[in-house]
Amino acid sequence: MAYLVSEPPASHHHNDVTGKGFKHLTPTNEALEALMQEVPRRVIEVETVPLLSALGRILGHDLMSPSDIPPFDRAAMDGFAVRAEDTYGASAGSPILLNSIGGVGIGVVPTVSVRKGDAASVVTGGGMPQGANAVVMVEYTKQTRNGSVEVSGEVHPGENVSRIGEDVRKGTVVLKEGTRLLPQDIGMLSYLGFTEVSVKHRLKIAVLSTGNEIEEKPESTSGKVPDVNRPTLLSAVRELGCEPIDVGIAPDEFSEIQDKLRGAVAMSDIILVTAGTSVGPGDMVPRVIDSLGKPGMLVHGVAMRPSMPTGLGVVNGKPIVSLPGYPVSAYIAFLEFVPSLVNHLLGTNSLPRPVVKARLRRRVAGVLGSRTYVRVQVSESGGNLFADPVRTSGAGILSSLVQANGFLIVPEHVEGYEEGQTVEVELFRPVEREQAAK
Amino acid sequence: MAYLVSEPPASHHHNDVTGKGFKHLTPTNEALEALMQEVPRRVIEVETVPLLSALGRILGHDLMSPSDIPPFDRAAMDGFAVRAEDTYGASAGSPILLNSIGGVGIGVVPTVSVRKGDAASVVTGGGMPQGANAVVMVEYTKQTRNGSVEVSGEVHPGENVSRIGEDVRKGTVVLKEGTRLLPQDIGMLSYLGFTEVSVKHRLKIAVLSTGNEIEEKPESTSGKVPDVNRPTLLSAVRELGCEPIDVGIAPDEFSEIQDKLRGAVAMSDIILVTAGTSVGPGDMVPRVIDSLGKPGMLVHGVAMRPSMPTGLGVVNGKPIVSLPGYPVSAYIAFLEFVPSLVNHLLGTNSLPRPVVKARLRRRVAGVLGSRTYVRVQVSESGGNLFADPVRTSGAGILSSLVQANGFLIVPEHVEGYEEGQTVEVELFRPVEREQAAK
Repeated sequence: MAYLVSEPPASHHHNDVTGKGFKHLTPTNEALEALMQEVPRRVIEVETVPLLSALGRILGHDLMSPSDIPPFDRAAMDGFAVRAEDTYGASAGSPILLNSIGGVGIGVVPTVSVRKGDAASVVTGGGMPQGANAVVMVEYTKQTRNGSVEVSGEVHPGENVSRIGEDVRKGTVVLKEGTRLLPQDIGMLSYLGFTEVSVKHRLKIAVLSTGNEIEEKPESTSGKVPDVNRPTLLSAVRELGCEPIDVGIAPDEFSEIQDKLRGAVAMSDIILVTAGTSVGPGDMVPRVIDSLGKPGMLVHGVAMRPSMPTGLGVVNGKPIVSLPGYPVSAYIAFLEFVPSLVNHLLGTNSLPRPVVKARLRRRVAGVLGSRTYVRVQVSESGGNLFADPVRTSGAGILSSLVQANGFLIVPEHVEGYEEGQTVEVELFRPVEREQAAK
Repeated sequence: MAYLVSEPPASHHHNDVTGKGFKHLTPTNEALEALMQEVPRRVIEVETVPLLSALGRILGHDLMSPSDIPPFDRAAMDGFAVRAEDTYGASAGSPILLNSIGGVGIGVVPTVSVRKGDAASVVTGGGMPQGANAVVMVEYTKQTRNGSVEVSGEVHPGENVSRIGEDVRKGTVVLKEGTRLLPQDIGMLSYLGFTEVSVKHRLKIAVLSTGNEIEEKPESTSGKVPDVNRPTLLSAVRELGCEPIDVGIAPDEFSEIQDKLRGAVAMSDIILVTAGTSVGPGDMVPRVIDSLGKPGMLVHGVAMRPSMPTGLGVVNGKPIVSLPGYPVSAYIAFLEFVPSLVNHLLGTNSLPRPVVKARLRRRVAGVLGSRTYVRVQVSESGGNLFADPVRTSGAGILSSLVQANGFLIVPEHVEGYEEGQTVEVELFRPVEREQAAK
């Protein structure tokens, strides 16, 4: 049986909570754990890419600094480079006179050399002249007519000097394997002289839709419908920074699904297949997965709403996520499992979704024992945030996810939330300001 | 004066809080407001891109649904399509018998027609046969040997039917201009038959570095240093989904900076220039901006730490952000101003950074009257989150931003936070689990 609109919204729960036909529903964290145990973190191959193309990629190795930063002792302030000892005792009341011996510009090698009693003018970022070990800030100096410098404050050795290697010492690890490269990392690596960098290969994620009713471009009178899941999931894969592989549509035929899935296992790191994942006689995806190799299906039926008929399996060491056909369910199950799986394989982490607190405008029912993703619209009104559950009755193909800007996730042990209660909402779009009513 | 390392860490504040040489520091929100008033939201040109390439792009127009979803009345449950009136009074104790007239598969046009007393088997997602107005769920039916169907529950008209247009009605706006397209939006638009979509042009953002001491590939003994700001900012521009334009490096020469900036204004939507933005005689960027056209500089000196010497200007309707040369300051000022500016020009919004609460492991000093970005490392230990300020003494080129995973932003009116206090940290990298001490 295909599954395009067959999952009832959570609020209906006309069946018992263990789900239609599923004898046991696995909590989502246990389901993920079972999958990860079977797919240990492999060594993902690395590739070398130009540094400026590496933004967002995952570092393949620890990177050590090939040089010191700063690369030489530098003035950290505008002023005069001196031997600190020569300033001891200087104060506004009793300044000390030093010989002005010229200056050091920025971006040039210092040519002057500071000896006992000398002072050389320096600018921030400029190299320290030989012999000097401190900088007197310009505010504590006065140049006199006869070529001397009056110093009205003492400095200790090293004061106002950026020492070579002070920021980054040659040979230390600046970025660890598994780091997702941010703009400042690119800047740092560029500063250190890297022009390319080893990053982990993008994971290939195959996406297959199944169902007799799905067609690429159906005639409106054909009884067929267009595919929602493939464009959604291919985009979601791209958003994760992975490489989507479009395996197309298979009708509800065992051998056709088997052929497509076998091909997908061969050419990708993770396989996503939608529909045919329930427990009816026409739901053959789990059996196909079992037919492809050991261990096959690990989990079938998860304790979440929507997306309960999700299955997780492994074939040839490749994880296969069997997603429901109902588009909202397919995408929410994707979000629950696939990003974590990708991070696990790549040995990295990602940022959580931003969370806001908002007052519920309507009661929300969870399902005891299940993790429920309620789609809500959070809006701001008079400086307060409010959350309206998006109506999900009827054949909500994807419109609840298009209208919503966040998930209110009701955990397994919570029955629901009351109207007026303050809840935490995970945002996937920004909060909008409510139009003032006229 | 070039500005590579010249901004002292906020904790030094050896000068008075109005900043070195700046007579007035503008609060960051006022500075941004002044800039936006001068650069009103323009109509950004749109371009048509293939739908599957539109992820993350900003929708150029409101999009209306060209068709109804579902495209036809569909069964929302497996069961029997009937005339609801024929089931009235049916119950487990007194079932009603209807004539079984065959069935409707999925993905085909129904050929049977339901008349008074008839029942046609249907599957979820399949088209409703003519004449039927409700579906009796299979759980409330029993097929008898003689070709009849025993119905043990009544249904009302419309029950278990997804009506044509119920999810999305033809002609309604499904996605509004200014929406940043998410995977589910791509799926929805694909379902509606869109193969391409009008999105706003990517904004072009030019990046220029200035400074005599900066060189693309300096010899280690030359007194020159490599450029950190351009690779960082070009990457940051890309991360915003904009198109970076590399304008290179200009030495501290008025006419050379002027030439480069004039070119940048001509070919981009926003111009970023680093260094030369303080108030010394060698800091000529503000004067160059004023020389290029009206209104020139609007704000010079902002009430934030680091990044105080930031300037904001407008030339030929194009915003120019004059960022400090000190790399940490340049990037933090970028984050404070440029994403908001991009959203303003594109008429869109973006998600906030995720925020976590963590206990401070060390005291943090703010600067009254300034918005202070403290770089912290948030880690998890024993189920609790802790925030350690990253040491920022010395010439912290970028290493504080490379080591940190979040910002503790101390607002203008707060003097600082005490050790042990719980603070909110905006994360830009995931929280790491602390290694247990041996």
